[in-house]
Amino acid sequence: MSTVVRNIRRGDRATVDAFAAFGVATIHEAQGRKGLLAPFMRPIYPGARVAGTAVTVEVPPADNWMIHVAVEQCLDGDILVVAPTSFSDAGYFGELLASSLVARGVRALVIDAGVRDVRELTEMRFPVWSKAVSAQGTVKETLGNVNVPVVCAGMLINPGDVVVADDDGVVVVRRTEAAAILKASQSREEKEAGTRARLKAGELGLDIYKMRERLAEKGLKYVDAPDGD
Amino acid sequence: MSTVVRNIRRGDRATVDAFAAFGVATIHEAQGRKGLLAPFMRPIYPGARVAGTAVTVEVPPADNWMIHVAVEQCLDGDILVVAPTSFSDAGYFGELLASSLVARGVRALVIDAGVRDVRELTEMRFPVWSKAVSAQGTVKETLGNVNVPVVCAGMLINPGDVVVADDDGVVVVRRTEAAAILKASQSREEKEAGTRARLKAGELGLDIYKMRERLAEKGLKYVDAPDGD
Amino acid sequence: MSTVVRNIRRGDRATVDAFAAFGVATIHEAQGRKGLLAPFMRPIYPGARVAGTAVTVEVPPADNWMIHVAVEQCLDGDILVVAPTSFSDAGYFGELLASSLVARGVRALVIDAGVRDVRELTEMRFPVWSKAVSAQGTVKETLGNVNVPVVCAGMLINPGDVVVADDDGVVVVRRTEAAAILKASQSREEKEAGTRARLKAGELGLDIYKMRERLAEKGLKYVDAPDGD
Amino acid sequence: MSTVVRNIRRGDRATVDAFAAFGVATIHEAQGRKGLLAPFMRPIYPGARVAGTAVTVEVPPADNWMIHVAVEQCLDGDILVVAPTSFSDAGYFGELLASSLVARGVRALVIDAGVRDVRELTEMRFPVWSKAVSAQGTVKETLGNVNVPVVCAGMLINPGDVVVADDDGVVVVRRTEAAAILKASQSREEKEAGTRARLKAGELGLDIYKMRERLAEKGLKYVDAPDGD
Amino acid sequence: MSTVVRNIRRGDRATVDAFAAFGVATIHEAQGRKGLLAPFMRPIYPGARVAGTAVTVEVPPADNWMIHVAVEQCLDGDILVVAPTSFSDAGYFGELLASSLVARGVRALVIDAGVRDVRELTEMRFPVWSKAVSAQGTVKETLGNVNVPVVCAGMLINPGDVVVADDDGVVVVRRTEAAAILKASQSREEKEAGTRARLKAGELGLDIYKMRERLAEKGLKYVDAPDGD
Amino acid sequence: MSTVVRNIRRGDRATVDAFAAFGVATIHEAQGRKGLLAPFMRPIYPGARVAGTAVTVEVPPADNWMIHVAVEQCLDGDILVVAPTSFSDAGYFGELLASSLVARGVRALVIDAGVRDVRELTEMRFPVWSKAVSAQGTVKETLGNVNVPVVCAGMLINPGDVVVADDDGVVVVRRTEAAAILKASQSREEKEAGTRARLKAGELGLDIYKMRERLAEKGLKYVDAPDGD
Repeated sequence: MSTVVRNIRRGDRATVDAFAAFGVATIHEAQGRKGLLAPFMRPIYPGARVAGTAVTVEVPPADNWMIHVAVEQCLDGDILVVAPTSFSDAGYFGELLASSLVARGVRALVIDAGVRDVRELTEMRFPVWSKAVSAQGTVKETLGNVNVPVVCAGMLINPGDVVVADDDGVVVVRRTEAAAILKASQSREEKEAGTRARLKAGELGLDIYKMRERLAEKGLKYVDAPDGD
Repeated sequence: MSTVVRNIRRGDRATVDAFAAFGVATIHEAQGRKGLLAPFMRPIYPGARVAGTAVTVEVPPADNWMIHVAVEQCLDGDILVVAPTSFSDAGYFGELLASSLVARGVRALVIDAGVRDVRELTEMRFPVWSKAVSAQGTVKETLGNVNVPVVCAGMLINPGDVVVADDDGVVVVRRTEAAAILKASQSREEKEAGTRARLKAGELGLDIYKMRERLAEKGLKYVDAPDGD
Repeated sequence: MSTVVRNIRRGDRATVDAFAAFGVATIHEAQGRKGLLAPFMRPIYPGARVAGTAVTVEVPPADNWMIHVAVEQCLDGDILVVAPTSFSDAGYFGELLASSLVARGVRALVIDAGVRDVRELTEMRFPVWSKAVSAQGTVKETLGNVNVPVVCAGMLINPGDVVVADDDGVVVVRRTEAAAILKASQSREEKEAGTRARLKAGELGLDIYKMRERLAEKGLKYVDAPDGD
Repeated sequence: MSTVVRNIRRGDRATVDAFAAFGVATIHEAQGRKGLLAPFMRPIYPGARVAGTAVTVEVPPADNWMIHVAVEQCLDGDILVVAPTSFSDAGYFGELLASSLVARGVRALVIDAGVRDVRELTEMRFPVWSKAVSAQGTVKETLGNVNVPVVCAGMLINPGDVVVADDDGVVVVRRTEAAAILKASQSREEKEAGTRARLKAGELGLDIYKMRERLAEKGLKYVDAPDGD
Repeated sequence: MSTVVRNIRRGDRATVDAFAAFGVATIHEAQGRKGLLAPFMRPIYPGARVAGTAVTVEVPPADNWMIHVAVEQCLDGDILVVAPTSFSDAGYFGELLASSLVARGVRALVIDAGVRDVRELTEMRFPVWSKAVSAQGTVKETLGNVNVPVVCAGMLINPGDVVVADDDGVVVVRRTEAAAILKASQSREEKEAGTRARLKAGELGLDIYKMRERLAEKGLKYVDAPDGD
Repeated sequence: MSTVVRNIRRGDRATVDAFAAFGVATIHEAQGRKGLLAPFMRPIYPGARVAGTAVTVEVPPADNWMIHVAVEQCLDGDILVVAPTSFSDAGYFGELLASSLVARGVRALVIDAGVRDVRELTEMRFPVWSKAVSAQGTVKETLGNVNVPVVCAGMLINPGDVVVADDDGVVVVRRTEAAAILKASQSREEKEAGTRARLKAGELGLDIYKMRERLAEKGLKYVDAPDGD
């Protein structure tokens, strides 16, 4: 059976938007190093950073029909998350679908498969994180599901979860944990700001983090290089 | 035996040039989803799009001697297509060979192996699609062939065929089919232009492509998300 | 036992700096095609070219503690070279460590593992050559060594060796051979400059390099393409 | 927080055992082509086929502590399913852990990471499906979870689900669907038995499956090869 | 348009059969190091060696319909060669199709994609060389071609060509060159038999192949290892 | 310059031979988790385990001339270690070279490249660990070095070092550390033998290794699965 779940509960908008101030690495740390999608998920162009709420699509291999179905379920602030039921690097998504998503206020695509029209998507500044780039098209023969939990690039993503992506990759934050993780990200960032200033001023991490004693205990020895060639 | 075939018959110049207006994905669709080289063929810098006629070179692994031979056979409007007889990711091609090709009006290089001097090639805006980037050089010991049919990145390319490449990859169009495929590409693009305008205006693909009935027949069901966390 | 070697002997500064005028491919050729790191070492952003002296760090898999130790050993003009003792693509290095290295005048990072904060590193124009990009962090539990010989991306690098990196990859020049290799690189570049001018003017490599006779001896034949389709 | 869930509800024993009569490909088809783990999951030796109930373990990268914790939760008829929270191909599992599992009646290991002691495991005929073989060991520093839902080789597996593995790969069947899928597998197998006999007798699939008419409608043409060389 | 070419001209039977006495490496050398398929083509079980005549099938990605069509065109002594028009590692082929091929005297399958039922195929001793093993099935929706030239694992194969496969991989010999290449393989093998006997008796290749003088000319020096640790 | 170093100092024979009683994983642990070659080094057939002293060969890409030179330097008990100066998966080694090595008492080949004649090597039971299997041959044009330190599969190997290989991979032990590491391997094995017996008898690692308290301290909680479906 194929199902489209409507009116999913989304992460709180203000919270979601606030995540865009933080990098994926920071958020991943802040939530205890979980939620990171596989590192083969790469942006089609550098420099983008987005946060949004997941609308999920489960698609058959090399069949993008359900993406058309999913567009209707997207709202302003969403990120479309596409997961094939088995491996595919076909080009599921291009400029036309992107135009449709932009019209609805969708912020990005995260897809564990291929995309095409990369030049046009780049000109539109519609950010995409994908496993592959391929001009190879797909068919529209078989159904899938919209807004069910999916496994995308090795990570479980629920509809309405918060997705954040930048040049480092893609991280998912559970909708119900978003507020807490946002706060933890802010704390982490504030702490890092202080450290950054000291490091830029030439202080050493060895001293800031007070590592010297523990290193010595573990047995670290300093020796001078021998002379000669 | 090693052979250089001179005076190959090339695709019609006006037709070839007209292909540059279309993306690889569009042309690939327009010719019935054939002719696409393997997706590991990537541009050395983003944003280039070229169309030209193939001068083909069959080279031994890690030996670029025949590329020097092939340069003489190149004319204005050509794309050099290099295929090793067995796997190699050595750096067959760099700035000097590119200078020579530019002097002859060659538009690009497509090589199922490695290139080097990527910084200089990028500054020259000489576009290359390759399997690898590597500073590892090659030798000049063994002959190959110029302007014979070659298998490049999994696809058969004949001398004189039309080659089109952009950020999505590389596609080959048979010389004898070029006029028909160009027309089909134009038709496809015109049709997409109308669709694009409607999608940007917020219409849904579900309606434009009249998908709703067929989806229902296949058994698609819409349900509302349950309440609660 | 874990050791930090202090006061290593570095390649001569003027010699090291002069290498930055040459591409990795040129230097690799000039030293007899040795010293090239594996081609999976890619820059995080295009266009950078640096030369510096190696401070080497041997790290456990997914543990970046020793990088903090190594920072203190870095001087102006160095390049930090990080090699895990077994395969890891974790994100060992980010913006904070980069800030610390910049404060000490370090010119780049070469790491046979992953990095993160790629957007920030790009904005800082701190160049990195790595095997992977990953937001996945590391721990600080286990010691390693600083300024011992390491195998990085398949190549042995000694502390104080000269490391040069650009879009083509990374090459290492032994400290004791640096002056000779610099001279050989200069010679090679001068010779290529002349060739480049002739190629740009339309002369053929076949003639410049006097290849025609040897090709004929090896059995190369020229034939004309048959007529017809 | 780290949790071990005890006394999970397992798939019915008779049903689970009956699955061992069917291949992974048959079961995958019978349940509508879902539940297949990524094809990089390979057996350490050929010829094994097992069915069992999943005890799941979520482990940190390169840390196998929780596998020791999980052993205690295993019962006769189980298959241990291990999923790292981020990519690792370290050798999490060897002969000692296998001895412990055998003592408890565990039938196999399915691990989205590496194993070692492959020779000993083969001699014991303890079947393992893994992503990698590696002698590189792990640490025991960080907690994880036992008997929570995990994503293993791209597929969600719940504790108590039925796991079946053979030379074709690994498939998971939801505990609550096991009886129905078993029946569907039996039906499929019976139908195939009849087809197999006819194919062995020389009948063609074209006739058995009545494909000729549909092929002709789609436009398939038969022509004779031209004479000559 | 989709075409099935009937009554192809096959390589001479006695010649084809005689190839099975030689390894793929020997034949590859004997024909001047051409015709070798990509090294990712691996046998599903070790130890098989077969020679036969190619019946070729061009299939869409993840669609095995044309394999059923091709079976009817197969005769005793053939090898079925399957090439997708774009990348696929789906499981196109299993035990039922193998049963049908065996009934017609087909000797092996060579497929640039995935197979399944590997355990059953191994028990039947039906040899397969493939790019992947996967239980993931295919559909029967789209036509392709039978007995047209195909590119399989990077190599052009014509219907009726001779295909030889063993643990080293797969090589194709043009039908029209088969007699000459067979003779060259026999010569090579006879020559190697003499060398093998001398090597087993302890003679050195350095002497048998008279390499010492040329090595010295190239500059090879012998030195004794220094004493000490 | 190319050099052959004669009369290298080899690890003590009795010590070397004694390593064959231990698995690669055990030895790797015993020497502090160092010395393991990259996991892509796989045996050509399962079940072999060998220990020997390294004769090292540094070879150009796709050129096996120096292997012929190295044979003469091999003695009874050696393992030939071959490392290309840049990436190659060509088939450097086959049955003839193996015959020659067997005549000299060489125990195995470890090669960071390809081999061929796998069927014949398997029948001879001459064990090989390689990165690839390929029928693609090599040339004999360029010199290299014998018995110099080489980097093989990411690990530095000196002539005379002890190399041990089995189904888990390949590990190198420094000649000067061999006696100590052998002793540590024996101790480890003895300790494991006791543990193995207790595990087979049904005792849990949790108790044998006294893990329960530390797990509780770290925060591990046990809960019962909820009822229901």
